[in-house]
Amino acid sequence: MEIETIEVVLSAGDEEIDVFDITQEVRKAISGWKEGFVNVFVQGSTGGVTVMEYESGLLKDIKEMFRELIPKDREYAHNLTWGDANGHSHLRASLLKPCLTIPFKDGVDFLGTWQQVVVMDFDNKKRKRKVILQVVGKR
Amino acid sequence: MEIETIEVVLSAGDEEIDVFDITQEVRKAISGWKEGFVNVFVQGSTGGVTVMEYESGLLKDIKEMFRELIPKDREYAHNLTWGDANGHSHLRASLLKPCLTIPFKDGVDFLGTWQQVVVMDFDNKKRKRKVILQVVGKR
Amino acid sequence: MEIETIEVVLSAGDEEIDVFDITQEVRKAISGWKEGFVNVFVQGSTGGVTVMEYESGLLKDIKEMFRELIPKDREYAHNLTWGDANGHSHLRASLLKPCLTIPFKDGVDFLGTWQQVVVMDFDNKKRKRKVILQVVGKR
Repeated sequence: MEIETIEVVLSAGDEEIDVFDITQEVRKAISGWKEGFVNVFVQGSTGGVTVMEYESGLLKDIKEMFRELIPKDREYAHNLTWGDANGHSHLRASLLKPCLTIPFKDGVDFLGTWQQVVVMDFDNKKRKRKVILQVVGKR
Repeated sequence: MEIETIEVVLSAGDEEIDVFDITQEVRKAISGWKEGFVNVFVQGSTGGVTVMEYESGLLKDIKEMFRELIPKDREYAHNLTWGDANGHSHLRASLLKPCLTIPFKDGVDFLGTWQQVVVMDFDNKKRKRKVILQVVGKR
Repeated sequence: MEIETIEVVLSAGDEEIDVFDITQEVRKAISGWKEGFVNVFVQGSTGGVTVMEYESGLLKDIKEMFRELIPKDREYAHNLTWGDANGHSHLRASLLKPCLTIPFKDGVDFLGTWQQVVVMDFDNKKRKRKVILQVVGKR
């Protein structure tokens, strides 16, 4: 059993929700490994990670889902505390959570054909978003 | 430290939401192991995994919860893209996420008495659903 | 690769939602380790774990978020089954899920500055809440 920890830095724009398909980064990380898993971890309290079919229709739908579940234009105590305006960003990230684990065997991950790994940046300003890919298993 | 990867195939019906209690499969997977964890991973972009008290009342409640949070009868861009009708299935799966990690020690998992492991199939047609149980630790 | 499993017991009050910042317990658990990850697991079907900026404003906001997404004062089939009144507690826990994985390298975890690890107890009565911290990696 071995372990390798890789840092990836994404450039998030100032859109309300940025979605990054990092499936290729995940595949690259496990390249040369035989059996194990990769833990994806998004650093920061306004980002998260999940899976989805990465196509333009669902991209619209998933952004709309978060807007409906946790609206932007509401009074959040967090915004009053900091004179900030990203209370909704924090809540969306806490609900989605920052980690995901993907197993692989015989060098192939178990992601479905339409199951891409996506990092979501909920923050409302441009920023760098650090993502950790930690591979654990046998080479 | 050792690793073992097991594939389980569930037969999902055409109900809006199928819920499978896979706690016994998890217990069988860690049988003979001493200390470690099992990663559960659901393949496909319309399935997920979580824990719940597996009883008929909560089964109704949790299905109703997903129907309320992410309604079925709404116009989703995904449905327009594909002439498909399962936009809500994808969104529910992305929100719930496909992975769960359960630790064990001295051969016993740390699940609570009323904390069963459940796979949820959100797709609206009959299908096989592959679930990966990957055990990592000491035998 | 080594493994260590630690049990932490939290004392939850009878508030609708108790939130515990366990970041220091996580840091203590990985103290002396070089590279790896810690799996946090909350035992029981009415508790969960996530990350958030632990400040009083967001604490109010996140409790309000769960109250809105999954209201307390509604008829749940679970409550009718058991003469119980915590159907909402179960659903909130199933949605949030009981596990979280945090990677570390060179002895330092990858949590962001404002990204604390929080256990949420959704149960409506006083109870002990067991949390498992399992560290895996190289010392």
